[in-house]
Amino acid sequence: MTSVDINCDMGESFGNYIVGNDAAIFPYITSCNIACGAHAGDPYHIEKTIDLAIAHGVQIGAHPGYPDLQGFGRRVIPMPKEELSASIKFQVAALKGLVESKGHSLAYVKPHGALYNQMARNKETARWVIQAIKSIDRNLKIMGLAGSHIKDIAQEEDLVFVAEAFADRQYELNGELRSRNLENAVLTDTYKAADQILSIALYRKARTLNGQEVSIEAQSFCIHGDNPKAVDILKHITHILKENGINKMHF
Amino acid sequence: MTSVDINCDMGESFGNYIVGNDAAIFPYITSCNIACGAHAGDPYHIEKTIDLAIAHGVQIGAHPGYPDLQGFGRRVIPMPKEELSASIKFQVAALKGLVESKGHSLAYVKPHGALYNQMARNKETARWVIQAIKSIDRNLKIMGLAGSHIKDIAQEEDLVFVAEAFADRQYELNGELRSRNLENAVLTDTYKAADQILSIALYRKARTLNGQEVSIEAQSFCIHGDNPKAVDILKHITHILKENGINKMHF
Amino acid sequence: MTSVDINCDMGESFGNYIVGNDAAIFPYITSCNIACGAHAGDPYHIEKTIDLAIAHGVQIGAHPGYPDLQGFGRRVIPMPKEELSASIKFQVAALKGLVESKGHSLAYVKPHGALYNQMARNKETARWVIQAIKSIDRNLKIMGLAGSHIKDIAQEEDLVFVAEAFADRQYELNGELRSRNLENAVLTDTYKAADQILSIALYRKARTLNGQEVSIEAQSFCIHGDNPKAVDILKHITHILKENGINKMHF
Amino acid sequence: MTSVDINCDMGESFGNYIVGNDAAIFPYITSCNIACGAHAGDPYHIEKTIDLAIAHGVQIGAHPGYPDLQGFGRRVIPMPKEELSASIKFQVAALKGLVESKGHSLAYVKPHGALYNQMARNKETARWVIQAIKSIDRNLKIMGLAGSHIKDIAQEEDLVFVAEAFADRQYELNGELRSRNLENAVLTDTYKAADQILSIALYRKARTLNGQEVSIEAQSFCIHGDNPKAVDILKHITHILKENGINKMHF
Repeated sequence: MTSVDINCDMGESFGNYIVGNDAAIFPYITSCNIACGAHAGDPYHIEKTIDLAIAHGVQIGAHPGYPDLQGFGRRVIPMPKEELSASIKFQVAALKGLVESKGHSLAYVKPHGALYNQMARNKETARWVIQAIKSIDRNLKIMGLAGSHIKDIAQEEDLVFVAEAFADRQYELNGELRSRNLENAVLTDTYKAADQILSIALYRKARTLNGQEVSIEAQSFCIHGDNPKAVDILKHITHILKENGINKMHF
Repeated sequence: MTSVDINCDMGESFGNYIVGNDAAIFPYITSCNIACGAHAGDPYHIEKTIDLAIAHGVQIGAHPGYPDLQGFGRRVIPMPKEELSASIKFQVAALKGLVESKGHSLAYVKPHGALYNQMARNKETARWVIQAIKSIDRNLKIMGLAGSHIKDIAQEEDLVFVAEAFADRQYELNGELRSRNLENAVLTDTYKAADQILSIALYRKARTLNGQEVSIEAQSFCIHGDNPKAVDILKHITHILKENGINKMHF
Repeated sequence: MTSVDINCDMGESFGNYIVGNDAAIFPYITSCNIACGAHAGDPYHIEKTIDLAIAHGVQIGAHPGYPDLQGFGRRVIPMPKEELSASIKFQVAALKGLVESKGHSLAYVKPHGALYNQMARNKETARWVIQAIKSIDRNLKIMGLAGSHIKDIAQEEDLVFVAEAFADRQYELNGELRSRNLENAVLTDTYKAADQILSIALYRKARTLNGQEVSIEAQSFCIHGDNPKAVDILKHITHILKENGINKMHF
Repeated sequence: MTSVDINCDMGESFGNYIVGNDAAIFPYITSCNIACGAHAGDPYHIEKTIDLAIAHGVQIGAHPGYPDLQGFGRRVIPMPKEELSASIKFQVAALKGLVESKGHSLAYVKPHGALYNQMARNKETARWVIQAIKSIDRNLKIMGLAGSHIKDIAQEEDLVFVAEAFADRQYELNGELRSRNLENAVLTDTYKAADQILSIALYRKARTLNGQEVSIEAQSFCIHGDNPKAVDILKHITHILKENGINKMHF
């Protein structure tokens, strides 16, 4: 029986600023990427989110990003290797320690936003980040864009790679995500998002805007928690997966 | 043969803002308290400082403080238990992970500035902080003001307490540090600072301004690294200790 | 014909973190207190809020607070006079300059959160803040808690004082706001909130929980924009005021 | 009689982090560029610096930068026009208000670090920044790199442009500054720095590394205050200028 992992970004609130609807989303996901206080999150919200994840039996990953609260980690901050590397180590170490203090373990790392994209675009950045993660814990898995060179670099560094696909993003023929600068980059239709997961999970294929098939191999599917319809989408996906005999289970 | 530990705050630089003269001080100390990125320090400078400590064979402690870069951790930031606790856990976990990533271990935690004083003043704060540290690693020792209730609380929590005395601060008859708001609170004379260490190390006694004796039992002595004469003071202390057959060695 | 001013805190979003529902609230208020980038707000959101205020013909006030994004200005940050004063001047000057760059003028200053309360509690703090505001522009009015000593200090400094009452907070017999630590501190009932405005506007009286009358003289009424029902409350208040022949108009 | 303006970056300290030696430098300069709290500076240090400038009769300019304390404004932060523009307006307005609150006026704006370079490299950025400055006060002069397109854009916007040359940077044959990535980019020799000012001030010419002449027209000369020898350089320059009958005077 096929099974899929559903992940969501969590713990991104800061002080009085609340984002996402973490408590409502946890029942429907199998992995969560928890912010590490650099692009978002503060220790209080991070710890609360870890507690929620444990209470719901959800697998925990670290979600480090560029140290840029103002830009929410969505801007590339130019940093030399030593600075970027130290920042990633610091973020992952903090999250790992918090998780372990509760008798659980950190399973993986999924870089955030501009860092995620920069790693898919630039091999050097990908290697710096992966080596930084490895130096903290060589058992951590690396989650990154399905079909990218990140897989190769993770494997060269002897880390397990987890390919991620997006339920609610349109794919192009070359397997890349359709740029958000173009129309129809995001699938706003709950049914289409569920179909895309199903198609990738069962047949390892997605469809382009023109209806052409493109191969996508993925172990985890991302749902955007800041989408106001996130809970509806998750409920529908859960339903559809069940109907098709697919189990939700973390990798 | 008696031995003493000399500790100094380190790793407090932030981006382009450099404080202290870490590289020059490391040869003369046996323990270092490394900032954790909340009141001071950034991941790059923190990692560099850990590397320096290891290169000099200096024992490493975490130096968490109130999350207040603007105030350098010298202001009491009102925080409910959950927020303070999460912040301490986050800071200590990050430092511990960075140190362990280099095959070394974190030995102790010395809270910084306003938090250090607040713990000596307020039992509840002391307990919150100590429990937070314990949740990250129950082998971490707690460094705090000699003669304070922090010792009792650490022991109630089954953590080892390390009493700290100050080489360059004037003691009062009740064993407290003379307030910085009063005259003669700081010993600016290199020789007097060395004498005070010697007297506490050999006879467990310091002298008040009036020349009265006060009992001080301490396992570690703090030197303020932001003092422009810090290196001179450390050289002199090293010399005096040697002359008196006292070994510098970390606890 | 009696008229009342309705004010609301605005422009408190920061980067990707959005708070309040500014666009929906503007049509119903006559004055807005715009964050100044220290406790909340960033230049982009501040400028956008100024533009909205101008488009709706809403009078603009500056809303400076303790420089404490993490605490959203709700914690007292211990600051010596020179630091607090410089921070207030900086915040008010920035807002004033932005408003004037659009051919409009800044009408008043309402301090935020912990600073607002600290001024009502501590005369020295109140004087420091008022003198700082005055140094930037002596035509700025000071908005503060009705019945507090802030009025006297503003007048001693030759600044106009605007007394503020709260639509949705319970008053005590001494004219103070019922502490948020006690039950029934907040009026969650839209009708009661409107009644309280009406009673203060028409008769200069509010009622305590026991039904006793307490005198309150106010020129402006605050509505909390982060209340999810803020727009409903504002609509109802607008309706009730109209029915009672009271005009909404800024002071 | 020829006269030259000598400018220096000032007010860049933040909380406990002190940079530069502002008090020692003020007697030797005629203009100062004061940080505006985004890349460096806090309100307290900014106000103190304004007071020092006024006490020394030194002309005041605003020194806005990318909002990036961690990077000290030396990294290009990707910002859309509206965000960059609002940030510049906010910074300049704050400084202008503080200066005017003391009965003085803000004379000019010199963007800082990566923003300064980005404006010289990218016309669009230059126009955004200049229009933002103009919206705050159309009497503000724009200081920028001598020989760059910034002059044209300032003039198109009807603002006065002040061309800046560097005493301690090597020029290339095309009039650009030799890249800091290459050897000999910085003139560390006090005498050579003074000679370069003299040559540009008297003959509008500098010399390349090969000894070729290059035309440089400048109204102001920058001295880097974070250079530990800054005061020595300034003393020597003052002496040399006097010997050559050149007056130090702000533009």
